[in-house]
Amino acid sequence: MTGLFITFEGGDASGKSTQSRLLSEWLNDRGIQPVFTREPGGTELGVEIRRLLLHSGHVSPRAEALLYAADRAHHVETVVQPALDRGEVVIQDRYIDSSIAYQGAGRVLDAHEIANLSAWASNGLLPKLTVLLDLDPATAKQRLTTLGEGFDRLESEKLDFHTRVRDGFLSLAANDPERFLVLDASQPIEVLATAIRARVESLLAR
Amino acid sequence: MTGLFITFEGGDASGKSTQSRLLSEWLNDRGIQPVFTREPGGTELGVEIRRLLLHSGHVSPRAEALLYAADRAHHVETVVQPALDRGEVVIQDRYIDSSIAYQGAGRVLDAHEIANLSAWASNGLLPKLTVLLDLDPATAKQRLTTLGEGFDRLESEKLDFHTRVRDGFLSLAANDPERFLVLDASQPIEVLATAIRARVESLLAR
Repeated sequence: MTGLFITFEGGDASGKSTQSRLLSEWLNDRGIQPVFTREPGGTELGVEIRRLLLHSGHVSPRAEALLYAADRAHHVETVVQPALDRGEVVIQDRYIDSSIAYQGAGRVLDAHEIANLSAWASNGLLPKLTVLLDLDPATAKQRLTTLGEGFDRLESEKLDFHTRVRDGFLSLAANDPERFLVLDASQPIEVLATAIRARVESLLAR
Repeated sequence: MTGLFITFEGGDASGKSTQSRLLSEWLNDRGIQPVFTREPGGTELGVEIRRLLLHSGHVSPRAEALLYAADRAHHVETVVQPALDRGEVVIQDRYIDSSIAYQGAGRVLDAHEIANLSAWASNGLLPKLTVLLDLDPATAKQRLTTLGEGFDRLESEKLDFHTRVRDGFLSLAANDPERFLVLDASQPIEVLATAIRARVESLLAR
């Protein structure tokens, strides 16, 4: 028995939370209780790691990548893989692609090294479906400002950083079209939800 | 200008602290102020990581290895490498060899994977000299009991675990005789100190 692993990726304010919640509700209506989780911070240890990452002063780039990877390793081993082994649906907010897009494309480290690190941390576990909510960073910034939300460390970086992150996501998607569903996140919520449901429905039918 | 990087390795109660202190004092007498540091815990971030490692409940093996590696990455980048770049002598309590011996030989993970992880974390930085204080685990246990010291998580593991760790250290030393100085740690303190000084003296002379 093996479950279904779905991840949501994209920049801040791209609608990941909204769409993963709507997908959960739709699954609930079909009698499926998905495991909803996220990285960083999906475990008790992960919460501590997340705290370190957000509130420490300078963290060296390699240390940052390794802390994210540690969170991932613990999360995959204690939450995701056990749920999949029980045949459950796991919906996750951010995974390997975020690490590669943010760290690799956005920072000083090589994207291939980050990909290798994540692959080792997760013992090679990849989602069956990754929904990429693609949004122009200028629009994302506007959304965040309208919401009056505080900026965390990543959000306060410059606009061209977010543009490189976006390009990183799109390039990952282009290299793995089988796994990715790329959606224009500026579309209405219900249009996006319908597209996601259609893909999940076909995966559940297999 | 490039400094001199010296590490001390060995099991608990093998005399690493005593010998590294004596070496520091000897260097002080020669007008050299070495940087004395350790892993895990040689930086503020490292102290937090050390706390996580010692006081969390179950930590998945890969997460544990990655947390040690994160500590290393931050420590090398912010403490060790800058000191070496200034031409200083760095004396460090535990480094890559401990990770490989404890995690690789002692736990469920492959030693080569741990070695690769550490190499990435440290950006390939290896010591010029590694002093391995080799001690029979039964003798080490006796020393600890005599000292009445509390056992941390690693110390409370079984004797055969420590035997595998010891074998791991010895095998690393056998594969890199240029870097390692292997000493029988059951010898008198002053005998060990003299042997260490002789090697360091020849390295300083270069």
